[in-house]
Amino acid sequence: MNNFADKLMESIRNKKSCVCVGLDPKIDLIPVEILSSSKSPTQAIYNFNKAIIDIIKDDVAAVKPQSAFYEKYLSAGVQCFFDTIDYAHQKGLIVIADIKRSDIASTAEAYAEAYLKNSYADSITVNPFLGTDSLEPFIKSCQENGKGLFVLLKTSNPGSKDFQDVILQNGKKLYELVAEKIDILGKQLIGISGFSSIGAVVGATFPQEAKNIRKLLPKTFFLVPGYGAQGAKAEDLKDYFNDDGTGAIINASRSIIYAYKNPQEKNWQDAIKYAVQEMNTQINNIR
Amino acid sequence: MNNFADKLMESIRNKKSCVCVGLDPKIDLIPVEILSSSKSPTQAIYNFNKAIIDIIKDDVAAVKPQSAFYEKYLSAGVQCFFDTIDYAHQKGLIVIADIKRSDIASTAEAYAEAYLKNSYADSITVNPFLGTDSLEPFIKSCQENGKGLFVLLKTSNPGSKDFQDVILQNGKKLYELVAEKIDILGKQLIGISGFSSIGAVVGATFPQEAKNIRKLLPKTFFLVPGYGAQGAKAEDLKDYFNDDGTGAIINASRSIIYAYKNPQEKNWQDAIKYAVQEMNTQINNIR
Repeated sequence: MNNFADKLMESIRNKKSCVCVGLDPKIDLIPVEILSSSKSPTQAIYNFNKAIIDIIKDDVAAVKPQSAFYEKYLSAGVQCFFDTIDYAHQKGLIVIADIKRSDIASTAEAYAEAYLKNSYADSITVNPFLGTDSLEPFIKSCQENGKGLFVLLKTSNPGSKDFQDVILQNGKKLYELVAEKIDILGKQLIGISGFSSIGAVVGATFPQEAKNIRKLLPKTFFLVPGYGAQGAKAEDLKDYFNDDGTGAIINASRSIIYAYKNPQEKNWQDAIKYAVQEMNTQINNIR
Repeated sequence: MNNFADKLMESIRNKKSCVCVGLDPKIDLIPVEILSSSKSPTQAIYNFNKAIIDIIKDDVAAVKPQSAFYEKYLSAGVQCFFDTIDYAHQKGLIVIADIKRSDIASTAEAYAEAYLKNSYADSITVNPFLGTDSLEPFIKSCQENGKGLFVLLKTSNPGSKDFQDVILQNGKKLYELVAEKIDILGKQLIGISGFSSIGAVVGATFPQEAKNIRKLLPKTFFLVPGYGAQGAKAEDLKDYFNDDGTGAIINASRSIIYAYKNPQEKNWQDAIKYAVQEMNTQINNIR
């Protein structure tokens, strides 16, 4: 099986979960027992990530480390980012490297080489603002390496209205035009499952827009951030899925990995496990 | 002096140059004598960058390392990226870290910390697609650390037409709307020079659009990629500057750092020096 969408579908089926856990480390929220047994902030982050992955690996389809929280620690942080990707990969999780990269084609090629060829990430997030020629090197690399993309379409932040929702001369919104391009590009990478390996990021905080986008893109996997700490609830998410309950993976970061009330708690592992299982139940109930 | 635009203006005045050299390493184009005396690809890249910086430091205002070409070598490459930034900073060059990052505010804050606080970069490139709230943490960090931004506005690639040129309901193009937002955001960071530390990326390959943008944004520094290898010539660039010859910095990468015809050449240093001086003459003639 060498199509990312097929691998993601299989992982969702095997784990009975459409949940993706965001690995967004914040040093002051890491359990004290991990901090006290680690020699550096990046070692503490890696140890915490390994512990989280061990706790959740049988219950979730994917993990999504967010590059910014690692780059903050410069090259040591980037090493920890790739080590985290490797560990999650070894444990059988689909890895979405949340890097939101974008550049002109000759430069995008170097990013594709870094993340889709030279790392164990199964997919990455990319920003479409530079146009379709900037996405093509990523798509080529997905074809060559059995990897996938999630293209930013309608992001979860309030300010996504500034440009993504702007109304064009033909009456459509900009995100609808981006959706058209994703649909065209995605046709090159349709798997046995019927889904394309070119997915889209659609924020959990905009259910009306998602209903519209779902109709435009029935064959596109949605990566849905914004659940939990950003305010979206399970009942908001029904229309992100197709009628058969497929087509979306819901990400939560802070509400899962910091489910314990404070870093002094001894049973932080149980809190994480319970939060994931609770989220699985809620999401599976509505799809 | 703690305003990025003022620092950039001073560097342009001191060096009598509006040229920025892009440090975009490609291992197969690095001079053989450097490759053969280096122990690893990233050491060769760093040694080559140091040599380039030593050759050009008195003749150009700024350098722009492009992160993708370093990330390709994973954490060792990222270390080389920051080492290159440090070296250029030590040699008195303005450093523009070309990272084109973007994310929701809580994540953008981590990127700002990485590149505007924890590194010696003077400024970074950012992508506006997520909206103004995604740019605010970067702006706050610029205020606190005397740094600057270049927001993608009209990029140099052909595909920039796909979204950036799209016509809105009010008859304006999307890039004009982005320009309006840059103008508003930039007012928070105007220096003694009259320019804002919030600049814009305007590709050298679109002189008509640049003429329009220059009128919309008289106080905004343009970072202008696309000169040389991407096809733009000096005579295309007059309208990127204000009438007094200020307001733009022109980047060239491949046409300068690989000005020698092949990596076997013994006088690659002279070729680089000559290419920079030639570009300075050409740009200074038209502004």
